[in-house]
Amino acid sequence: MHADIEHMCAHSAPRQRLFTPGPTPIPARVQTAMAGPVVYHRGPDFPALLRGVAADLKTVFPTPHDLLLLACSGTGAMEAAVANTLTRGDRALVAQAGQFGARWADLCRAYGVDVNLLDFPWGTAIDPDAVADALRKDPSIRAVFATQSETATGVLHDIEALAAVVRQTGTLCIVDGVSSVGAHPLPTAKWGVDMAVTASQKGLMLPPGLGIVTVGPRAWEATVRSDLPKYYWNLSAYREALSEGRGPATLPVTLLSGLRAALDMIEEEGLEAVWTRHAWHAGAVRSAARALGLSCFAQRPSNALTAIGLPEGIDGVALTDCLRTRCGVVIGGGLAHLRGRMVRISTLGHVDDLDVLTAVAALEMGLKHQNWAFPPGSGVAAAEQALAVRQE
Amino acid sequence: MHADIEHMCAHSAPRQRLFTPGPTPIPARVQTAMAGPVVYHRGPDFPALLRGVAADLKTVFPTPHDLLLLACSGTGAMEAAVANTLTRGDRALVAQAGQFGARWADLCRAYGVDVNLLDFPWGTAIDPDAVADALRKDPSIRAVFATQSETATGVLHDIEALAAVVRQTGTLCIVDGVSSVGAHPLPTAKWGVDMAVTASQKGLMLPPGLGIVTVGPRAWEATVRSDLPKYYWNLSAYREALSEGRGPATLPVTLLSGLRAALDMIEEEGLEAVWTRHAWHAGAVRSAARALGLSCFAQRPSNALTAIGLPEGIDGVALTDCLRTRCGVVIGGGLAHLRGRMVRISTLGHVDDLDVLTAVAALEMGLKHQNWAFPPGSGVAAAEQALAVRQE
Repeated sequence: MHADIEHMCAHSAPRQRLFTPGPTPIPARVQTAMAGPVVYHRGPDFPALLRGVAADLKTVFPTPHDLLLLACSGTGAMEAAVANTLTRGDRALVAQAGQFGARWADLCRAYGVDVNLLDFPWGTAIDPDAVADALRKDPSIRAVFATQSETATGVLHDIEALAAVVRQTGTLCIVDGVSSVGAHPLPTAKWGVDMAVTASQKGLMLPPGLGIVTVGPRAWEATVRSDLPKYYWNLSAYREALSEGRGPATLPVTLLSGLRAALDMIEEEGLEAVWTRHAWHAGAVRSAARALGLSCFAQRPSNALTAIGLPEGIDGVALTDCLRTRCGVVIGGGLAHLRGRMVRISTLGHVDDLDVLTAVAALEMGLKHQNWAFPPGSGVAAAEQALAVRQE
Repeated sequence: MHADIEHMCAHSAPRQRLFTPGPTPIPARVQTAMAGPVVYHRGPDFPALLRGVAADLKTVFPTPHDLLLLACSGTGAMEAAVANTLTRGDRALVAQAGQFGARWADLCRAYGVDVNLLDFPWGTAIDPDAVADALRKDPSIRAVFATQSETATGVLHDIEALAAVVRQTGTLCIVDGVSSVGAHPLPTAKWGVDMAVTASQKGLMLPPGLGIVTVGPRAWEATVRSDLPKYYWNLSAYREALSEGRGPATLPVTLLSGLRAALDMIEEEGLEAVWTRHAWHAGAVRSAARALGLSCFAQRPSNALTAIGLPEGIDGVALTDCLRTRCGVVIGGGLAHLRGRMVRISTLGHVDDLDVLTAVAALEMGLKHQNWAFPPGSGVAAAEQALAVRQE
C-alpha cells in the first residue's frame, strides 16, 4: 500500500509527533551528526570538539562561568551541584512549587543536608519576598535552590528577582534550568546565579544523556569547603580534564557531535530569535487553549511548555491517549495529584509554526472525542492569529 | 573527484576505522534504530522497551541477577556499586594490575572507604591465592573489587578463580566487566560474583552513555546496611522504577532503542558464536604481532583487546599517529608509564575477519614507516592463517 494512503487508514498507526517537555524532537541535522563516525575520546580530534561545544554552549545560557559536560541526565547534573557545594549538616533552602523543584530537596536530604522547604502552591510562582524573609530568619542557610521552568506546572519562576534577593546575603543561588535553557535566557553572572544546570533532551534538541553544569566563582569557592563524597560528580576533576580537552570519565561522544550541530543551528537562527520563537509558539498554544474554553494553569507561564488545566468532564488521561493513538501527537499529562486534570504541550526545541498548529488541531480532535463543546477550528484559528501577528 | 580515487590520494583523509577499546564501531542497524522516532519515557511504549532490554541484556553476561540501566559512563556504574554496598570506614580490598583496576580504589577512597590495595604488576593477572591470603589476614574486609578485562594492559583476570576464593568468606565480590561483557562470559551467579558493571560503548556496540549494573541477593542485602549518600546512584530506586517500567531519572532513550537492535544482533549471531569470534579475532592479532617480531604484553590475554609491547626503536606515539593519519586506523596507545611503549588494538564488538586483517595491514604499514624490519605481509599472513583454521 502507498505510504500516504496507509497513513489515512483509520487502523494504521499515525506518524509520531513529539510535543513532550523532553525528550523533544531531534532535527535531522543533529541526527545526521550523531550518525557520523564515532570520535575516539582519547584521539586528537576530541579536545577541539569538547572545548568547542563547552565554549559555545555558554552563549546559550548565556554565561561567562565555567561550563562542564557530564554523561548523565538532568538529575545527575543537579546532584553534582549539591555534592560539590555543600557539607553534611549544612542548611539549604529549597523554593519549590512542583515536582521538579521538590527534587532539589530529595537530593539535599540524600546527602544529609538539612532542608528548609519553602513550598508554594503548584501553578504559582516562587515569591522572592518570601525567600528574602526565610533568609533573614535563618542566616545559616548556605544555598538556595530553585527551578527556572517547572515542567510539572508550566510555570516560569522569576530567577532574576530570586537571585537578586539571594545576592543580598552570602548564600549561594543554584538553579535548575533543565527545561528552560534554550527557551528562556538564564544569564547566570548577570543575575547572580552561582550554579545552573541543564540537560540535552530539552531546548538543546538532543536525545537525553548529557548533563550540563555551569559553575561561577562563588560556587567554586564553596567546593573547597564541601566534604560530601563524590567521584563521578567531582566538578573540579571535570574542570581540570576540560582544560586538557577530555573528560575524567568517558563522555557521550555522539551526543557531543550532535550538540555541535545543535549549537550551529541555534547560532544560525540567532539566540534572540530562538527565544522569540519560543515565546510566540507558547503564546499561540495559550491563545488556542483559551479559545477552546480551557484555562492556562501557570500563573507566570513558561515558553518551554504550556500546562492546560482541564475542567470537570474532560478526562486528561483519555485525552492524551486519544491524541497519541489517533493523531500520533505525544503530549504530557498531569503529574502527581494533577494526573487526569491537565495536559502539558511542549513547544520546546525544534518546533516550527505548523507544528504548533498541528498540536492544536490534534487537541481539538481529542476534545471533540470527549464531547467538549467548542466551535470546530476555533483553537487553530486563535493560534493562527497569534502567529500571524508575528509574521507581519 | 570520484570518491574511490579521492581515498587513494595521499593528501586526502582516509575513512576512519575504529579499533579502540571503546568506543567501538556502531553497526548500521544500531545507528538506524537510534535514528528512529524518540520514545517518550513517560509514554506507553517505554515500559516494554526498558523491560525488554533489561531482561535480554541479562543473557549476555549471563546473569539471573537484577540488571539496572543508568544514564552514565562505566565509571558511574562503578560508583553506584561502591555507594550502594559500603559504609563510611568499611574496609575494601582492591585487586588491581592496571589503570582501570586503580579506579575502584579511587572511588572507594572518595567515599571514605578504607582501601587495602593488592597491587600486581601491569601485564600480569591477579593472583587469587594472594587475594585469599589478604582476606585471611583481614577478615574485616567487606568487599573485593576487581576488573575482568583490564583495558590498560589487555589482561583477562581470572574472575572465576577470584570469586571462588572470595566466596569462601562472607565478603562481597564486585567486578568491572566494562570492556569484557560481550567478549567473554561473566556468569555472575555461577561464579559467585555479587555485582558486575558494564557500559554501552564496548562489546554492546553502542555509543557511550549507558551504564549497566547487575545486583545479586548478597549485594542487595548489603544495600540495607550501606549509608553512603546517594540519590542518582540509588540502585533500590532503579529496581523499584524498573518494576514500573521506568527510570527514577530520565534514561537515555535513544541508547535503549540502539541496545534493542544490538541485543537482537547478538541473539541472531548466537552468544557463544560472539564469544568465539572474539577469541579468534584476538588470537589472529596476537599471531600477527608475533609474526612481526613484537610481543604480547598480557600474561593472560583478553579477547577484547590486544596490548602489543613495543621494543626499543619503535615509538608507540608516532606509530598510532601514523596509523591514524595515513590509514584512518584508530588504535589505542599505551597509558600512563606505558605511553609510547605499547599499542592496543581492539577487536571488541562489531568487528569481522576482514576488519582484523585491515588493522594488521595498517600496523605493518606503520611499522615499515618506522623502519622496523620484517617480511612484508608476514603479519597479515599470520592473521589470515589463524582465521583460516576457524573457517575450515
